[in-house]
Amino acid sequence: MEELLKINDIQQVISVLFSERIPYNKLLGLRIGSLDPAQPTVEIDMRDDLVGNFIHKTLHGGVTAAVLDVTGGLVAFLNLMEKLDELSREEKFARFAKLGTIDLRIDYLRPGRGNHFVSTGYILRTGNKVAVTRMELHNEQNTLIAVGTGAYTVS
Amino acid sequence: MEELLKINDIQQVISVLFSERIPYNKLLGLRIGSLDPAQPTVEIDMRDDLVGNFIHKTLHGGVTAAVLDVTGGLVAFLNLMEKLDELSREEKFARFAKLGTIDLRIDYLRPGRGNHFVSTGYILRTGNKVAVTRMELHNEQNTLIAVGTGAYTVS
Amino acid sequence: MEELLKINDIQQVISVLFSERIPYNKLLGLRIGSLDPAQPTVEIDMRDDLVGNFIHKTLHGGVTAAVLDVTGGLVAFLNLMEKLDELSREEKFARFAKLGTIDLRIDYLRPGRGNHFVSTGYILRTGNKVAVTRMELHNEQNTLIAVGTGAYTVS
Amino acid sequence: MEELLKINDIQQVISVLFSERIPYNKLLGLRIGSLDPAQPTVEIDMRDDLVGNFIHKTLHGGVTAAVLDVTGGLVAFLNLMEKLDELSREEKFARFAKLGTIDLRIDYLRPGRGNHFVSTGYILRTGNKVAVTRMELHNEQNTLIAVGTGAYTVS
Repeated sequence: MEELLKINDIQQVISVLFSERIPYNKLLGLRIGSLDPAQPTVEIDMRDDLVGNFIHKTLHGGVTAAVLDVTGGLVAFLNLMEKLDELSREEKFARFAKLGTIDLRIDYLRPGRGNHFVSTGYILRTGNKVAVTRMELHNEQNTLIAVGTGAYTVS
Repeated sequence: MEELLKINDIQQVISVLFSERIPYNKLLGLRIGSLDPAQPTVEIDMRDDLVGNFIHKTLHGGVTAAVLDVTGGLVAFLNLMEKLDELSREEKFARFAKLGTIDLRIDYLRPGRGNHFVSTGYILRTGNKVAVTRMELHNEQNTLIAVGTGAYTVS
Repeated sequence: MEELLKINDIQQVISVLFSERIPYNKLLGLRIGSLDPAQPTVEIDMRDDLVGNFIHKTLHGGVTAAVLDVTGGLVAFLNLMEKLDELSREEKFARFAKLGTIDLRIDYLRPGRGNHFVSTGYILRTGNKVAVTRMELHNEQNTLIAVGTGAYTVS
Repeated sequence: MEELLKINDIQQVISVLFSERIPYNKLLGLRIGSLDPAQPTVEIDMRDDLVGNFIHKTLHGGVTAAVLDVTGGLVAFLNLMEKLDELSREEKFARFAKLGTIDLRIDYLRPGRGNHFVSTGYILRTGNKVAVTRMELHNEQNTLIAVGTGAYTVS
């Protein structure tokens, strides 16, 4: 029970850090949907100032890139946490602070039309030094808008 | 002379479209530095709400991605304009509207520290259907922060 | 029936072209496993001269890249064929000749150990000008060795 | 003088390892042109069995990928050696054995026509864990055929 509380606590800490303490995430209105390490999600609502194409009113490619990047970082961190389960909370947060994107590829598959978007992360490779992740962005009609692949340093 | 005025006019039109009519560019404060087709530039100033790492106060990876993406689109468009010099202004703008990012790779080389960032675009391949571009982001001390490669549809 | 024969014929033509007429495919011993447009496969057997790491006897990264590239081209072509079903055989083959890789990303997830490898292709985006594909390479124990994403011109 | 001999020796060891002991490099006929850490080169001659497009007799995309991949690994290793100059030869070779490609992006800019190709590597980021490199492939007429970007683990 105490263990469960701790986990819940950590999850809440991560969610608040993510949405409130990372300024650009806050600017965009990014928030965590799920912290399931197998497929965590990040959500964002359409807003007028997130538009790229003012004729078609679609999401700017830079918003898509931002959402996919943070989703990749999130799934990398969650899987590292599972591997490092024996670490203290302080050590875990220290590892979180070391997380960094090495590189990112984004494929823009369809115009970013929609009111609400969900980005889902999947782990492809998890190691002590580097994690590789895959991300997918869907709109509220479950249309696949974009996919991404990222490499992250985790130590 | 009239031709020159027209060109200047088009350049001004592009600059205003870029910074004022693309909502997300406006939100980030992106503006065109140079419209030289050989190496156009896009500029952005650091702001508190563009920060990703709240300890180190560095640029969020999503901002870097946005700047590199629009720089790639810009250099692709400018090189297409040169190739299609015989087209009317209306036809040129019609081509502009069809410009889209196919995919983008970003390599985050160094932490995004700085007050002012300049992104420069280079054309790698220019065709009737697809353009491939390379982009570099430097801070005001000329430190290379990130590089990117993008493929764009131009028809 | 005649229609079916034609389809079978085309499939055989593609398989022979792929393995026998593309010299580098022949050098590597690449062959088509399945021509199902939803998930075609390309197969390759391990050989001493395909090794990259002579200590661990693993597949060279360049072999992995070659297999993923041709798999992406194959799935792009098969999906284009479905869209262009009304075209004559001659027109179809003319489109095949125009197929070209724009760019390719490969993520090397695990060492290329194994005796037999299967690469599977998936279509992410199919258009009149550009197709985007995803590829996965597994060994005979179904271990995921590498993934790739490619963009191809199809006209 | 003895130091110089040692350096020369190491260079010869690397060249022989590269061309003779890595089976797939040998199959393709890859050889080191320069071991200058600032821009090392790898060379390859056209051969009938390296062709991808049998109509245009151009280099197969998988050959391009192989050459760019090993060039990226080479420049990553040479820059690591410079940083780790104080290490013993044994330790240096141990680090060489740990070198691995994380991911690779290749942009195919122009058809691979030519008799002789040179691939040049540049370092973009060199760290204790990850190196990021850029590669360019030219033919004997100095036409830029393809570019690549790679991330490598170096520990």
